[in-house]
Amino acid sequence: MNITILGGGGFLGQKLAARLAADGALGGTPVSSLTLFDLHAPPVPKAAFPIHTLGGDVAALPDAAIPAGTDVVFHLAAVVSAAAEADYDLGRRVNVRGTDAVIDACRKLAKPPRVVFTSSIASFSGGQTAILGDQARQLPANSYGAQKAAAELFLLDATRRGFLDAVCLRLPTVIVRPGRPNKAASSFFSSIVREPLLGLATDLPVADDFKVWVSSPRSALGWLMHAATMDTAALGLDRSINPPGISVTVGAIVAALDQVRQGASTLINRAPDPAIEAIVAGWPAGFETDRARGLGFAPNEDLVTLVRSFVADDLEATRAERG
Amino acid sequence: MNITILGGGGFLGQKLAARLAADGALGGTPVSSLTLFDLHAPPVPKAAFPIHTLGGDVAALPDAAIPAGTDVVFHLAAVVSAAAEADYDLGRRVNVRGTDAVIDACRKLAKPPRVVFTSSIASFSGGQTAILGDQARQLPANSYGAQKAAAELFLLDATRRGFLDAVCLRLPTVIVRPGRPNKAASSFFSSIVREPLLGLATDLPVADDFKVWVSSPRSALGWLMHAATMDTAALGLDRSINPPGISVTVGAIVAALDQVRQGASTLINRAPDPAIEAIVAGWPAGFETDRARGLGFAPNEDLVTLVRSFVADDLEATRAERG
Repeated sequence: MNITILGGGGFLGQKLAARLAADGALGGTPVSSLTLFDLHAPPVPKAAFPIHTLGGDVAALPDAAIPAGTDVVFHLAAVVSAAAEADYDLGRRVNVRGTDAVIDACRKLAKPPRVVFTSSIASFSGGQTAILGDQARQLPANSYGAQKAAAELFLLDATRRGFLDAVCLRLPTVIVRPGRPNKAASSFFSSIVREPLLGLATDLPVADDFKVWVSSPRSALGWLMHAATMDTAALGLDRSINPPGISVTVGAIVAALDQVRQGASTLINRAPDPAIEAIVAGWPAGFETDRARGLGFAPNEDLVTLVRSFVADDLEATRAERG
Repeated sequence: MNITILGGGGFLGQKLAARLAADGALGGTPVSSLTLFDLHAPPVPKAAFPIHTLGGDVAALPDAAIPAGTDVVFHLAAVVSAAAEADYDLGRRVNVRGTDAVIDACRKLAKPPRVVFTSSIASFSGGQTAILGDQARQLPANSYGAQKAAAELFLLDATRRGFLDAVCLRLPTVIVRPGRPNKAASSFFSSIVREPLLGLATDLPVADDFKVWVSSPRSALGWLMHAATMDTAALGLDRSINPPGISVTVGAIVAALDQVRQGASTLINRAPDPAIEAIVAGWPAGFETDRARGLGFAPNEDLVTLVRSFVADDLEATRAERG
């Protein structure tokens, strides 16, 4: 199995590459080669199969990023929410033109590859009172979400035309992200766990009773791998899936933090930020995920397990990286 | 009021230009200038105000197409359904890149113009049993529909950002179209009325009990003009409207034809065409249009009036054009 990860230098891309390198297989099929593509050539994990790494603009995707014989493309390359809001042209270039470039690369292949695309709950609105069903309409209140919803439409159409075989996952807010705070409006949902565990103070821009739809990196990784190998015949025309995250309050995240590291939450400063809240408050608080569960997507773990997983998987590497 | 019609050489574009020229005003405001843009510079009606005409590629829109001071843009430029299905790249270029070019032109203006965009029921699926509500999800089963749905998302987002002030009308199948059969999969819905009235034989590729959501050119024109001048404050984030067409069977269209011209339907040959049916059978048979009616969009006339309007408005010009 020949695999490409676009956005292979990012948080999920690197975790996925490491997992494929460790397993040597995906869905029981041995991995023959892996290609990692990002703005800059991503780091390469140790593996028993060849790994190619290359850098560039996803909207001007080089042929080598999705070479002949590619079976699976993980299309994770994106400009995130606050950055796409700050720079409309950049968001359009990466999130829309980038997806068109992926479609065009797949059209050149002899066999339509599976394409696993990370869309986002930011493509929906509805806000704190909304629990959305599988047939909910995407009415995005931010450019990132609009671009992701449009990319889903193009991938649905490309699948119908036989150019590729897409599964689009509208990922919840993934916490806890390792590394540093980033430009996503949702960055603070990770920071309120990660920073205190590093002994650092952090700001909480929304109230404790603010509800958010989250998943862990472990669950997101599991969903990506399931999407890459599942039987897509049952999907029909509709190639988009709301995977089974969990709807939690910020207060519950803080409580889980304290349960894992007593008193850690004293490093959290309540600092309301209307600009951040204006973006995240538009996202729905939860989803009914009957379709995803019926298609074999595993439920997310509970919050305490999620915080413990961050400590086990990422805390030391994050501490080392940040010095 | 300075007005631009993109796709100004097309069927609705020419009707709209003629109407503006005749009225000298839109929504009670005098027209100061009109710019007509299409692939080739469109014909210009006689008017008391200056009319500029220019030709080119909408995806590389010249500045003169939406000049400084433009108040209203009718964005009707499109590659239609069967043509977008036959040529994926052309459909993407005109229907998606073209809309991006319109957005970029509007961003340059000092005041965000009203943009009236013609989307389509082809952006929905559901088929013969579906009566869709205002919150129905767009799950297009053809490239044209996917491109139109994506363009709606970009216009919604551009409105939210303050680049422009969009109203997107998901037009029903508009019958009776003048002129010749075209590459739209829905072309036959007009041909079965127009061709017999010209004394010409025509093929009917679906069964008589096939249901279709239609509107007349007169109604479509009325909706375009209402969308150009209505108060958009009530729309909120959601800039897309399903206007109040009528759900009819092909048999009812044929009966209305015979009521207007006795025996005309003997020129209709039942000639099932699975390729045509595969496209149109995916479109929903009807819509609930509470939102549109609440926003002041007038209901469509009945079928007999619709056929009589074609005879009154377009039959002689079509006969002359086709020789």
